[in-house]
Amino acid sequence: MPTIGFIGLGTMGAPMAANLLRKNYAVTVYNRTPGKAAELIGLGAKEAASPRKVAESSDVVVTIISNDSAVEEVFYGEEGILSGLKPGATVIDSSTISGDLARRLAASVAEKGASFLDAPVTGSKDGAIAGTLLFMVGGDQAVVEANRDVFLAMGREIVYMGASGSGATAKLCHNAIVGINAAGLIEGMAIAAKGGLNMESFLRVVQGGGAASKQADLKGVKVIGGDYSVQFSLALMLKDLKLGSVLSDGMSVPTPMLEVAKSLFQAGQAKGYGEEDLAALAKVYEEWIGKKI
Amino acid sequence: MPTIGFIGLGTMGAPMAANLLRKNYAVTVYNRTPGKAAELIGLGAKEAASPRKVAESSDVVVTIISNDSAVEEVFYGEEGILSGLKPGATVIDSSTISGDLARRLAASVAEKGASFLDAPVTGSKDGAIAGTLLFMVGGDQAVVEANRDVFLAMGREIVYMGASGSGATAKLCHNAIVGINAAGLIEGMAIAAKGGLNMESFLRVVQGGGAASKQADLKGVKVIGGDYSVQFSLALMLKDLKLGSVLSDGMSVPTPMLEVAKSLFQAGQAKGYGEEDLAALAKVYEEWIGKKI
Repeated sequence: MPTIGFIGLGTMGAPMAANLLRKNYAVTVYNRTPGKAAELIGLGAKEAASPRKVAESSDVVVTIISNDSAVEEVFYGEEGILSGLKPGATVIDSSTISGDLARRLAASVAEKGASFLDAPVTGSKDGAIAGTLLFMVGGDQAVVEANRDVFLAMGREIVYMGASGSGATAKLCHNAIVGINAAGLIEGMAIAAKGGLNMESFLRVVQGGGAASKQADLKGVKVIGGDYSVQFSLALMLKDLKLGSVLSDGMSVPTPMLEVAKSLFQAGQAKGYGEEDLAALAKVYEEWIGKKI
Repeated sequence: MPTIGFIGLGTMGAPMAANLLRKNYAVTVYNRTPGKAAELIGLGAKEAASPRKVAESSDVVVTIISNDSAVEEVFYGEEGILSGLKPGATVIDSSTISGDLARRLAASVAEKGASFLDAPVTGSKDGAIAGTLLFMVGGDQAVVEANRDVFLAMGREIVYMGASGSGATAKLCHNAIVGINAAGLIEGMAIAAKGGLNMESFLRVVQGGGAASKQADLKGVKVIGGDYSVQFSLALMLKDLKLGSVLSDGMSVPTPMLEVAKSLFQAGQAKGYGEEDLAALAKVYEEWIGKKI
């Protein structure tokens, strides 16, 4: 079994690393903010002092970090991954980043004689805990196959998307649809609420009809209950929609739906709901309609 | 068993009437455009010469007609339903119409000593054929219960929404979400296509992830295959989004997502795709990105 390095012990990363430990992989962990490793150490993980130290002791380095600039620091910093990476190693980056950065990382990793896969995930916090994530992967297909067991220790499905950067692109397109579906759900619920409908009945209609969606299943009850505990934060949703917008603009693709969804989550962020679940967008509509959804 | 009148033998109505006949109801049918009743007559239906004649011979009159003005004609015309309706009868209107018209119809029907339910459906053509429609119903709850068997001959679920007009309101809110989800799916697929992704792989990611939706299941493959045979026509989707917009404007609810989706389907209509499936919105994006999705 390859030795694993794991960098980024947030909402998604910590349970993913725990699942690798449960499948008996030797895992060395690192997190920029200290104090996140205690539970994993209890499961058998070693903690390293830097990304470099992680890379020096790992055949496979998995990273899942919240944004482009943090990813750059973890890779290119003085004590970064690239300074310690072993020839023949594989880097699996599950962060949601731009395709451009994914391609740049792939080139930098290749210079070290190692392989890079951009492998973002979908499945949210619950899927990370249950080990049912779906990985969308860009890079060399042979490297994907060689690391099949590592992926399947953390998830249930690997979808190969093509050359480096295509996993990142797939994730941004996927999350654009997530943001649009969530905003559309909440807007439809706001009209229904203003129209005086019973919201449980309306949600039942949505879930039983052509309007059914994963977002309706995940967020409908949260909106009705005013439960904005985080599955996927509004700030991260907004970040991904911004990246999707940059991607589309770079290819001159008109994206009216994405732009409006982005503006709505931007309004939620401006109101101070960034660290709540993206379902907190409902509070923006509730102010507009002057009542609880 | 009550005798049934059925008016509106279109994509949805014809299979709904057929399911009533298969459950051994005596059904008298009428359609504004002649020649639609032949198959139903083969299943045992009688054909009447006018909505009035249908109403005169029916305990329950079911209507499913494509728009507000056609509904008005069928109810209020010289040979309309209201001129023949029996006291104690029930009218079940499954058309997608405005809440205002539904409330006006309810009042007119009540003046004849009969009961009105606004009972639009979700489930599309396939659900109408399979008898798995979901009815969202406004009106007197006791009347809904009294007609339970009639509903369940055509569908699998009845969701009671409240007073007259609330079924219609629920349907418009539901279909606003349908339109937004469909437009968002197609937009996300357009970005992915321009980014060079394999579309089957991308659709698999969508269906396996947080972006999953009934619209992705129904329309994803149609878009990839360029199959715009009608499940739900683009023109009817546009009509419903316009009604949703009027409903929202009347209550001063801001609906940025709905408005953009409406404009996109309006663009599809302007390009001449109105009589194709709503998935033909993909052709608008394909012109924008200069390639097949």
